[in-house]
Amino acid sequence: MLSSVYGFSQSKSILVNQERLENSILELAKFGQDPENTGELSRVAYSDGDLKGREYVISLMQKAGLEVNIDYAGNIIGKKQGSDNSKPPIAFGSHIDSVPNGGNYDGCVGSMGAIEVLQTLQDQNITTEHPLELIIFSNEEAAVVGSRAMAGALKPEALNESSPSGYTIAEGIKRIGGNPDKIPELKRKKGDVAAFLELHIEQGGVLDQENLQIGVVEGIVAIEWWDITINGFANHAGTTPMDIRKDAMLTAAKVILEVNNTVNSFDGAQVGTVGRINASPGAPNVIPGQVTFSLEIRDLSSEKIWTVFKAIENKAKQIAKTDGMGISFRHIEAASKPALADKLIKKDIANATKQLGYSYKSMPSGAGHDAQEIARFAPIGMIFVPSKDGISHSPKEFTSAEDMANGANVLLHTILAMDKRLK
Amino acid sequence: MLSSVYGFSQSKSILVNQERLENSILELAKFGQDPENTGELSRVAYSDGDLKGREYVISLMQKAGLEVNIDYAGNIIGKKQGSDNSKPPIAFGSHIDSVPNGGNYDGCVGSMGAIEVLQTLQDQNITTEHPLELIIFSNEEAAVVGSRAMAGALKPEALNESSPSGYTIAEGIKRIGGNPDKIPELKRKKGDVAAFLELHIEQGGVLDQENLQIGVVEGIVAIEWWDITINGFANHAGTTPMDIRKDAMLTAAKVILEVNNTVNSFDGAQVGTVGRINASPGAPNVIPGQVTFSLEIRDLSSEKIWTVFKAIENKAKQIAKTDGMGISFRHIEAASKPALADKLIKKDIANATKQLGYSYKSMPSGAGHDAQEIARFAPIGMIFVPSKDGISHSPKEFTSAEDMANGANVLLHTILAMDKRLK
Repeated sequence: MLSSVYGFSQSKSILVNQERLENSILELAKFGQDPENTGELSRVAYSDGDLKGREYVISLMQKAGLEVNIDYAGNIIGKKQGSDNSKPPIAFGSHIDSVPNGGNYDGCVGSMGAIEVLQTLQDQNITTEHPLELIIFSNEEAAVVGSRAMAGALKPEALNESSPSGYTIAEGIKRIGGNPDKIPELKRKKGDVAAFLELHIEQGGVLDQENLQIGVVEGIVAIEWWDITINGFANHAGTTPMDIRKDAMLTAAKVILEVNNTVNSFDGAQVGTVGRINASPGAPNVIPGQVTFSLEIRDLSSEKIWTVFKAIENKAKQIAKTDGMGISFRHIEAASKPALADKLIKKDIANATKQLGYSYKSMPSGAGHDAQEIARFAPIGMIFVPSKDGISHSPKEFTSAEDMANGANVLLHTILAMDKRLK
Repeated sequence: MLSSVYGFSQSKSILVNQERLENSILELAKFGQDPENTGELSRVAYSDGDLKGREYVISLMQKAGLEVNIDYAGNIIGKKQGSDNSKPPIAFGSHIDSVPNGGNYDGCVGSMGAIEVLQTLQDQNITTEHPLELIIFSNEEAAVVGSRAMAGALKPEALNESSPSGYTIAEGIKRIGGNPDKIPELKRKKGDVAAFLELHIEQGGVLDQENLQIGVVEGIVAIEWWDITINGFANHAGTTPMDIRKDAMLTAAKVILEVNNTVNSFDGAQVGTVGRINASPGAPNVIPGQVTFSLEIRDLSSEKIWTVFKAIENKAKQIAKTDGMGISFRHIEAASKPALADKLIKKDIANATKQLGYSYKSMPSGAGHDAQEIARFAPIGMIFVPSKDGISHSPKEFTSAEDMANGANVLLHTILAMDKRLK
């Protein structure tokens, strides 16, 4: 029977149920909805809304025939037996927690899409050779807690940090059925999982703008942060003539424009952003003596990020020197390393997409995801579906039911292809 | 006897006592000194340091033969009889309160300089024709409370506002011997005072940089404030490619540079400052959707300020249009009107300066002063002495004893000249 589903010609008629998927997304959206602000979702990890959402998700997983457990980090893990359970599982999943005042698609599309895939396999009475493992990761939004725990990369001190729910991470993990003391036991090693797939909304506007259905993710970009500080001299804005000022704001403005020019001067998909700025002392009637602003650079290559930064640094130093200002650069230890998608998995995803007749492009993921943590111990792949107008982390976040179903179909057929390809 | 002092040739030998003036400044500096931070002065109005400083000032005034009273607003008023007391008094003075963490010269030089002038007149046994009135204004730094009360321009609601001392203005006025309920009775009308003079540190770096001894103030500049807001679209800094961003920070940087270019493109002494900036949402990993920054323009002419503003507004709108951004301008009702110095008083000051052999220049006052309020009902003049490196409102504020004495000598001889000139 299995062999009958492995050739795509035989299996391409197997499609997920779009209506059922859409209904599950709408149903999940009810948990954590702010009753006073229609449309605003605050299903932050460990909140009452998160707990109710998790109950709903577990019920759907059980309905799809999975054996469901909660691990020490609060991840919900659903297992489906394969025909050869000596093989490591093919894993896939996402998360259902949201940012404060978020939307209904980030994480949810990948989570409910994965459940829909398993429900479809049950409906079609299909058993893969590899066991399948569906993972709904805990607390993705605050600090990729669940996936990081699984990768053995969650630092013990992170457990004491507070989360938007008001609970510390440790308290929150207990609330959702985990056991923070035993998290070190969770660590998986290479080979424990055959591969990991994550379906997710793009959270950017590329697919929507180019009217494409699927993004085949090349990898999750590395992120580096700096603070840049310009030092001039604070002085009275009334009594200090224009020509003897040392106005840090003017130099900051020049450097901010140069950041943009420099990032754009390189070929590639790197992005650079100044998102935060502070002028000191910060009064309308005082010439700013010091201005500090953030610099973030993202790219699939850490080396490229540093090349771009060095170019910015050189130009900014020239500007500061010309203006007679001090300048300093502080690298912030919040950086994340890139996580490249496995070449063969990318190929599996692209093939499945083509065979399903969907348009697609290869693209980096500019946002971080659980898949990035799982990449520490397993080959990964990610499938993107369009975000309307590129909006995410907002109540305006939207992905159409058709786009969600397309993504789930690509996930389904990539799993089937991987099941065949992988030993 | 009086006639013998009126010709400058006879009176130019009359000079203040530099050492006594310097000692009084150093003595006054002890009141409000922060014992934990040497050099930092916090003689904010109504504080214990202010009360003790006022006691010291009153003692010096009485020693100089003045009849001292405290008016309903807490101003200290010292009167010296003239030979013709039917004439309105020639008034002069300044303030002794400081900003938090301020210095020892702002207000103090004019206050102690005025006392030194009166002590010198007593020592020399000189009586002017006009009565003289020395005013130590209460709470200049927080809201020119004393001088504004005298001008009948203190709004009743201002009494309920808090001050850096922790007391409300009303509570503070009571603490220093005033009566807030009776403040309306204080209002002076035109003719009540023949003229008003204020000696003050420049609080800017022009005299120090040009190595000049005296500034003959042309007037106190008008001040206008605006908030300028750039509206783009906040988005994920990782998932939004450079070419489809609507980054309000970039447009703000261009407009800030254009503010500076435009202010400098006009002839004159106008100044324009962007001192405060806020990017929203203000995270390193979010493209700013909105950036708001302050714009302050100062000039002796309100009309000139608006001309400069209109030029900035036009250019900023062009920049925003080119960048596809929204832009809005909000005028803030914190504006102050210009207060021009009386032409004849300016001439009296310049003549006295020349006859004393001091170098000088005519210049606007970029900072506000009590004289600005008194200008509502009397002709005013101001005398500036150098601020080292242009620093003020800081423990680093400094004016040399010689410069202070020069200023007091100009004040003295301007009073004598005005006494002769005025009816």
